[in-house]
Amino acid sequence: MEGNIFQLQYAIDTFYFLVCGALVMWMAAGFSMLEAGLVRSKNTTEILTKNVALFAIACVMYLLCGYEIMYGGGYGLAGIALDGADSADALTAAVLAESVEAGFDGDAVYSDASDFFFQVVFVATAMSIVSGAVAERMKLWSFLLFAVALTGFIYPMEGAWTWNGDDVFGLYNLGELGFSDFAGSGIVHMAGAAAALAGVLLLGARKGKYGPNGEVYAIPGANLPLATLGTFILWMGWFGFNGGSVLKLGDAASANSVAMVFLNTNAAAAGGAVAALLVARLLFGKADLTMLLNGALAGLVAITAEPSTPTPMQATAFGALGGVLVVFSIITLDKLKIDDPVGAISVHGVVGFLGLMLVPVTNDGSTFTGQLAGAATIFAWVFAASFAVWYVIRLVTGIRVTEDEEMQGVDIAECGMEAYPEFMNK
Amino acid sequence: MEGNIFQLQYAIDTFYFLVCGALVMWMAAGFSMLEAGLVRSKNTTEILTKNVALFAIACVMYLLCGYEIMYGGGYGLAGIALDGADSADALTAAVLAESVEAGFDGDAVYSDASDFFFQVVFVATAMSIVSGAVAERMKLWSFLLFAVALTGFIYPMEGAWTWNGDDVFGLYNLGELGFSDFAGSGIVHMAGAAAALAGVLLLGARKGKYGPNGEVYAIPGANLPLATLGTFILWMGWFGFNGGSVLKLGDAASANSVAMVFLNTNAAAAGGAVAALLVARLLFGKADLTMLLNGALAGLVAITAEPSTPTPMQATAFGALGGVLVVFSIITLDKLKIDDPVGAISVHGVVGFLGLMLVPVTNDGSTFTGQLAGAATIFAWVFAASFAVWYVIRLVTGIRVTEDEEMQGVDIAECGMEAYPEFMNK
Amino acid sequence: MEGNIFQLQYAIDTFYFLVCGALVMWMAAGFSMLEAGLVRSKNTTEILTKNVALFAIACVMYLLCGYEIMYGGGYGLAGIALDGADSADALTAAVLAESVEAGFDGDAVYSDASDFFFQVVFVATAMSIVSGAVAERMKLWSFLLFAVALTGFIYPMEGAWTWNGDDVFGLYNLGELGFSDFAGSGIVHMAGAAAALAGVLLLGARKGKYGPNGEVYAIPGANLPLATLGTFILWMGWFGFNGGSVLKLGDAASANSVAMVFLNTNAAAAGGAVAALLVARLLFGKADLTMLLNGALAGLVAITAEPSTPTPMQATAFGALGGVLVVFSIITLDKLKIDDPVGAISVHGVVGFLGLMLVPVTNDGSTFTGQLAGAATIFAWVFAASFAVWYVIRLVTGIRVTEDEEMQGVDIAECGMEAYPEFMNK
Repeated sequence: MEGNIFQLQYAIDTFYFLVCGALVMWMAAGFSMLEAGLVRSKNTTEILTKNVALFAIACVMYLLCGYEIMYGGGYGLAGIALDGADSADALTAAVLAESVEAGFDGDAVYSDASDFFFQVVFVATAMSIVSGAVAERMKLWSFLLFAVALTGFIYPMEGAWTWNGDDVFGLYNLGELGFSDFAGSGIVHMAGAAAALAGVLLLGARKGKYGPNGEVYAIPGANLPLATLGTFILWMGWFGFNGGSVLKLGDAASANSVAMVFLNTNAAAAGGAVAALLVARLLFGKADLTMLLNGALAGLVAITAEPSTPTPMQATAFGALGGVLVVFSIITLDKLKIDDPVGAISVHGVVGFLGLMLVPVTNDGSTFTGQLAGAATIFAWVFAASFAVWYVIRLVTGIRVTEDEEMQGVDIAECGMEAYPEFMNK
Repeated sequence: MEGNIFQLQYAIDTFYFLVCGALVMWMAAGFSMLEAGLVRSKNTTEILTKNVALFAIACVMYLLCGYEIMYGGGYGLAGIALDGADSADALTAAVLAESVEAGFDGDAVYSDASDFFFQVVFVATAMSIVSGAVAERMKLWSFLLFAVALTGFIYPMEGAWTWNGDDVFGLYNLGELGFSDFAGSGIVHMAGAAAALAGVLLLGARKGKYGPNGEVYAIPGANLPLATLGTFILWMGWFGFNGGSVLKLGDAASANSVAMVFLNTNAAAAGGAVAALLVARLLFGKADLTMLLNGALAGLVAITAEPSTPTPMQATAFGALGGVLVVFSIITLDKLKIDDPVGAISVHGVVGFLGLMLVPVTNDGSTFTGQLAGAATIFAWVFAASFAVWYVIRLVTGIRVTEDEEMQGVDIAECGMEAYPEFMNK
Repeated sequence: MEGNIFQLQYAIDTFYFLVCGALVMWMAAGFSMLEAGLVRSKNTTEILTKNVALFAIACVMYLLCGYEIMYGGGYGLAGIALDGADSADALTAAVLAESVEAGFDGDAVYSDASDFFFQVVFVATAMSIVSGAVAERMKLWSFLLFAVALTGFIYPMEGAWTWNGDDVFGLYNLGELGFSDFAGSGIVHMAGAAAALAGVLLLGARKGKYGPNGEVYAIPGANLPLATLGTFILWMGWFGFNGGSVLKLGDAASANSVAMVFLNTNAAAAGGAVAALLVARLLFGKADLTMLLNGALAGLVAITAEPSTPTPMQATAFGALGGVLVVFSIITLDKLKIDDPVGAISVHGVVGFLGLMLVPVTNDGSTFTGQLAGAATIFAWVFAASFAVWYVIRLVTGIRVTEDEEMQGVDIAECGMEAYPEFMNK
């Protein structure tokens, strides 16, 4: 009968992982809608294509080599593939040998396949962050080539150093330095932003974004309901992103932790939204919808490094900090002429760093030194490796569309079809 | 080992609550898309802003004081905040003392944080109902001020009288009178509609909606795919809304009840949709999409007061009643010159009342007297309190935009940006 | 205590079914958005109306008679309706008599209501496939009449022969011939496509689609973000479609199987997307978004007949095969002047057949003969019965709108309202 109890716990923990993974996969739709809403109509088909394709590429690459690089175990091209029948047999035998007590002491035991499923949708999230920042002027196939590199190699490397606990190039160990990043403010979000920043620096700003005398021209998004929908999708998907990162549900302490993570994730988004709305009102005199959306997302990013130990009041406050920071970051990046059409570098990069720095406030197991070391390692590696890859791609195939193509819109040049063929004012 | 069984049940019941809560949170996206699709394009950014902001405000206010008013327990500003670590420790200790039998007799035991998470998304639903009814002419900041009052005080008060069983102002007890409202046809939906009605009466109709001789002019929504998407989102989210209101999953009887609630919720929506489609065909000679959508929503509202005791045939019939009623209610409100751009008062208020009255048909534990008393109490309180709050806001800051702003569209005036800057015929 | 363990397993298996069912219901929104995005703006309201109405009709008809025809048991009009209270009592008593071992040997025991809920959303999926193929020229009410026939009779008949194991007209048994269709590549998807093909052949092509000398004119969809959103929704919902078809979660072997199904479903979609993108690039020289979307869907259809036994590498490859096939199928159907505005016959029919044929590659319990027999039976029955029903409807009420209505768009003629009244270039 102890075996039966164990099997139930195993089933619950597996299902919890799968539900959370499905929610994270859903974030791919969120990024697509957010970005499609914030670009101009003439560049919409292309950003949709990029988002669907990058998700698919991430799934293929992580299966081929990414998971093996990050966690080992002999999967993918490195060995025999994950095999349903065999792994089920092996685990069924294995579980009976497992101690029931272990499961109730918080040791996670669940299907390998559910773990892969949950991890693979995280990789795609990191890559989704990039597509927004380089929107409206990057070549589609160059972007997809970069997606191969990021999801197959660059992200899995830093993932191995952090969540898998490997030494960084054999030199030092982030865990030993007191680095902690619960669900990936740094490992996923800041990493994606670092890759995006490298791309943007090599790519340059969109034509017409900045004037010769420091003017910043607004380029309004074509479809704000889509952007709002995308934000709600991301908000919802984030329950899976953070909630699943507890990695275990099936005992009372773990269940409490998962519940607190859901609650805090929601509270931080709410805090970020309210704060950004108020700050934008003070600065611009209006209720700025795009800042409101970015505020909610900033709240989510800010809490992602540690959503389990803050109280809901603290989570609301941390989210609000993120919401304030993101408004100023977006303004500042524009002053620096770093053109990021959807604000991805601010939301995921700048606020991702904030999230890492807030961890030691409520989590005794982390240190500010460790957080700085982790942030520096992640940023340095992802930025440098991405810069190198973008650079090589630029040399070989180019990364920027021609001026004519940019003027006409990349949809026609790259995809051969308009997103809204009947609606555009011509 | 009994402790382990209990922990599993605790984990399952907590997870069930969290999944249902995430689905209810998703309804916020549904209301946003529904309303954004049914208003004109010039008022779309503003209604999106309202919907995101009201959700965030609801989360903050319910944490600060709403949950404490409704359920007590010393949370929020009234005491120490919900605390992840402490509550997890306390509960882990507590669970071992709990009787395993209690859990299998249907007593719900789950994480406090999951309960808060589930409750807070309900508050936001009530407020979402309001935004549609006052669309296209209400000042944004006045609306958000009202959201503070409704989600922090007005809703929690009636929630305490109903779901928490408090005496109404110390005078009488709704539960003792035989009032029953399973998931909130009255407590959430009719309450939201009552607040909306108070606002609409003080606000007046949109310019051009009604002619001097009783003419009613249709003002078509700008984006029906969005409205349809919103309806599907609400339909899906409602499984969490009603299904989670069983409050317990982890024994056979509770699991059966949750399953029946999912099935009946779906059946009622289907019945409402078919009925409204046919009635609209008879009345208008066409397959009226907006009536079809409102019919599905009406079916959902009608079953919400008692989705567990009807048979699926009865649920389909109850939904169909809602679908018929909502068509006539929308026509009638227009005759009364009560201008509700999305039909929210009919869907959630009139059909919410129907839902309450249908409870005694299948649930012996309720009485028609009790249902009437409950409906009267909820409506009187929420309408009166909301009227007072709207009235004060109108005195202090005004609640209606200027005629020029209304003509130009509130997006420019309130938010400074258009929702579809490239598409509008100018 | 054994009874308690059993109750927990029962609760978990029921909840798993409900969550998966809610995801499949969500696919209705996916089909709606996909189809609304791929038709012209003047036919958008009508296709939205069809999609919402067909889902509602499917739910009503399956309750009235479809479930009884497919699985028996005395439900619906054939007997007493599913009854929450009674079934809960009966099951609670029954479960104590059940052997706990049975549950851990993989025998599924769960709420009847959860089974109905999961099955009913499958029916709607089959019918959703039809609406896309006949878009832009079929009469709305004729379509809904057909929906009554398909969901109430045609689909339940073949469902009885396959998933319920009945003899086909008392002549032969598909299961005995070695037919296996895990989640419905054939039973749901190819069946829907067969019904669609019958309709399209009787209906004819849209005006202006084909020229007199074999020209094929592209008729671009009006709203590609919607089509992309629809694809993501379907991708997500498919986790429920395939994952729920394991029918059991609550032991280690079943949990492993469910996890593998989620993983393979995702891998196949990714493989299909990448393959279709590359093939379209080779053929057309562009990154064709609509082919990319159809490639992802083709990958999903291809894996649906057997998502549990392939390795993820195989699943990726099977999906890629689907993605390649769908591109050539769409081109071929256009050469045959079979006008399918959204590619539904290719995605669900041609690739559905591929999916059936791939089963014996990894599943020893099936045979190529059995798969061919099953495919032939399903196709012959659904095509012939559908053809007859469409034919009778054409005789009685007609199935095609007038040329004027087609030119003007069916939205005005059928629904009396435009989908985007402010945006269309007139």
